[in-house]
Amino acid sequence: MSTARLETFADGVFAIAATLLILNVDAQVSEDVHDLGTTLARIWPSYLAYAVSFVTIGILWINHHTVMSQIDRTDRRFLVATVGLLLCIAFVPFPTRLVAEHIRGNGARDAALAYGFTMMAMAIMFNITWFYASRGRRLLRSDADRAVATGLSHSYLPGPWIYLAATLISFVSPATSVVLFMAIALFYVIESAIFGSAKSAA
Amino acid sequence: MSTARLETFADGVFAIAATLLILNVDAQVSEDVHDLGTTLARIWPSYLAYAVSFVTIGILWINHHTVMSQIDRTDRRFLVATVGLLLCIAFVPFPTRLVAEHIRGNGARDAALAYGFTMMAMAIMFNITWFYASRGRRLLRSDADRAVATGLSHSYLPGPWIYLAATLISFVSPATSVVLFMAIALFYVIESAIFGSAKSAA
Amino acid sequence: MSTARLETFADGVFAIAATLLILNVDAQVSEDVHDLGTTLARIWPSYLAYAVSFVTIGILWINHHTVMSQIDRTDRRFLVATVGLLLCIAFVPFPTRLVAEHIRGNGARDAALAYGFTMMAMAIMFNITWFYASRGRRLLRSDADRAVATGLSHSYLPGPWIYLAATLISFVSPATSVVLFMAIALFYVIESAIFGSAKSAA
Amino acid sequence: MSTARLETFADGVFAIAATLLILNVDAQVSEDVHDLGTTLARIWPSYLAYAVSFVTIGILWINHHTVMSQIDRTDRRFLVATVGLLLCIAFVPFPTRLVAEHIRGNGARDAALAYGFTMMAMAIMFNITWFYASRGRRLLRSDADRAVATGLSHSYLPGPWIYLAATLISFVSPATSVVLFMAIALFYVIESAIFGSAKSAA
Repeated sequence: MSTARLETFADGVFAIAATLLILNVDAQVSEDVHDLGTTLARIWPSYLAYAVSFVTIGILWINHHTVMSQIDRTDRRFLVATVGLLLCIAFVPFPTRLVAEHIRGNGARDAALAYGFTMMAMAIMFNITWFYASRGRRLLRSDADRAVATGLSHSYLPGPWIYLAATLISFVSPATSVVLFMAIALFYVIESAIFGSAKSAA
Repeated sequence: MSTARLETFADGVFAIAATLLILNVDAQVSEDVHDLGTTLARIWPSYLAYAVSFVTIGILWINHHTVMSQIDRTDRRFLVATVGLLLCIAFVPFPTRLVAEHIRGNGARDAALAYGFTMMAMAIMFNITWFYASRGRRLLRSDADRAVATGLSHSYLPGPWIYLAATLISFVSPATSVVLFMAIALFYVIESAIFGSAKSAA
Repeated sequence: MSTARLETFADGVFAIAATLLILNVDAQVSEDVHDLGTTLARIWPSYLAYAVSFVTIGILWINHHTVMSQIDRTDRRFLVATVGLLLCIAFVPFPTRLVAEHIRGNGARDAALAYGFTMMAMAIMFNITWFYASRGRRLLRSDADRAVATGLSHSYLPGPWIYLAATLISFVSPATSVVLFMAIALFYVIESAIFGSAKSAA
Repeated sequence: MSTARLETFADGVFAIAATLLILNVDAQVSEDVHDLGTTLARIWPSYLAYAVSFVTIGILWINHHTVMSQIDRTDRRFLVATVGLLLCIAFVPFPTRLVAEHIRGNGARDAALAYGFTMMAMAIMFNITWFYASRGRRLLRSDADRAVATGLSHSYLPGPWIYLAATLISFVSPATSVVLFMAIALFYVIESAIFGSAKSAA
């Protein structure tokens, strides 16, 4: 398959998963709400969760593009690995809602665990996809820069461990765990804001 | 990243956000409704809200294309800014529903404020995206017309202020505020109908 | 705007509107249903409505492509007209659900009217889009075949009147009206099955 | 129509149908759930059903691409057949939810039947699409490999029968039937993992 069609399908899943997040906010306000203003203020974790997950999916989409820019062909194994990655991406709206609704209740730990394990699975699939393509330069473009490829490997490898650490902290403090998930998303935005124009986006 | 893949992802979010608006209308009619005709007549604000938000997202999509037609490369900062813009676009269905459901009740002001602030945030992100790309012709095509670029700057800059004004009016009269939101959408349609074939769409 | 990006956005709205139709079927089966088999049999109008609307949107997508194949440029008016057309397409899931749920109850007439008027509005917008583009060959490709263009005009013009007739019949018999909506969809499928390989799809 | 636009529309439906599957998981957890952890553990069939259907749709998307890679033109009949195929694909989220919710209750047989018949219809439409295109090399690329085309015919033909067999088993044991649906999906993943890099993905 040309990488073009793979990208169309992947972009579709990324875009839909991100856009469906708004349904979580929407479900928080019932039609027969009495005091709309109070309700809109009370559900602030939903806005935050929406923003964090949307930005996370957006960053993942940018990273996926960076990977694809180094690749010029696909095989069935790579396609199946990508389907696995997209399966995790499309799952994100569900734990996002759990965190938004339960972070202030006694389901906080379970919600944080669900979010963390989803992110971990996603980071693992991201690594599988990338290392399958780059190992021995299997699917890389002939002119793919060795330095860029090594840089990608270095930046993707810690992902699962970072999410594992943030997830495990929820056993001590679910709130800290969730703050760390937000910090990870924020880190990528700030990193892009500072270094983003120096590094050219391939 | 090539601008092509950015456009695929952005088009996806625009298309989904617009199409999801129908779920707001749908939720207004419960399955066990007794008098369907009366209900369908009573929920006219939902049709209006659907049309106004659909047209607004459609105009924003046209504008986004106009911006992208002047650009021939991207960097990480621009991508992150675009993700921020799309985050606002994908949020639109939620305040649209609030306005449709509450404009005739005592939640009218809060609903108008939610709609207005969403539109303001969106207009601000639109400006950030455009001015980041055009400042010093950072990401512009080498053959981008200086007059077109200046024209875009002039037409996007007032956006946040117009929405701010329309939003603040909701403290005096939410209905007036909502009529202004409709007028803004209508203005763009009429402007296109009158001047649309003279100005070539790049 | 290049016609390519217009088609990406339009294809997105067509695809999402069609795929969202399944949510109407889904909403008919509550989680705590007692006799699943009986329920699945009882909601047969939902399957039929799903199929009719999916095929109708699919045919409209094919027709939209046929129009776009004759066009090689766009202007703002054409884009705004297309947004209006897509607004009608994205509305289709709502009246589809109304017909499926109410065709056997006393809301049958209102449901048929809602479906019919949506289809009429859609057919009108389709004509506006096409005639704006083809009048005086405004946006047509220089090599667009005059016979093909005339053929399109002849086949699109009756659309609104056919849907108006089928809609008005609902005042006498909503069931007949709905059968006619199905017949219109079926006609296009059969017409394609018989003549489809002779006429080359541009 | 160029095959490119057909693929954009098809990719859209595949991507949306797959991403909507998460709504089935989401609906299983009500907002006022008391013990979140217990609920998240209890709904494990929903995760499994999500994964199986997502992978199945993903594999179908890969197969659809393989078909399209052998084709270089379309006609109206082929487009209508593709709309029929996509109609089945977009239907998948509904029986997926039925299986997830009812496999442990007395609706298990009906749910398995609904899932099986959907998959059978889908496999039949897949064959219709492929054999219409390949019969007498009607729509094939002039350089399409006869061996590849024959291979595709051999691998698609048994599909409906395999699903029919797995579906009929639900009259004896719905659980066995569902395990077979999972095995079919797993088979394709494992087959790709073993043979996937040898066979180049066209």
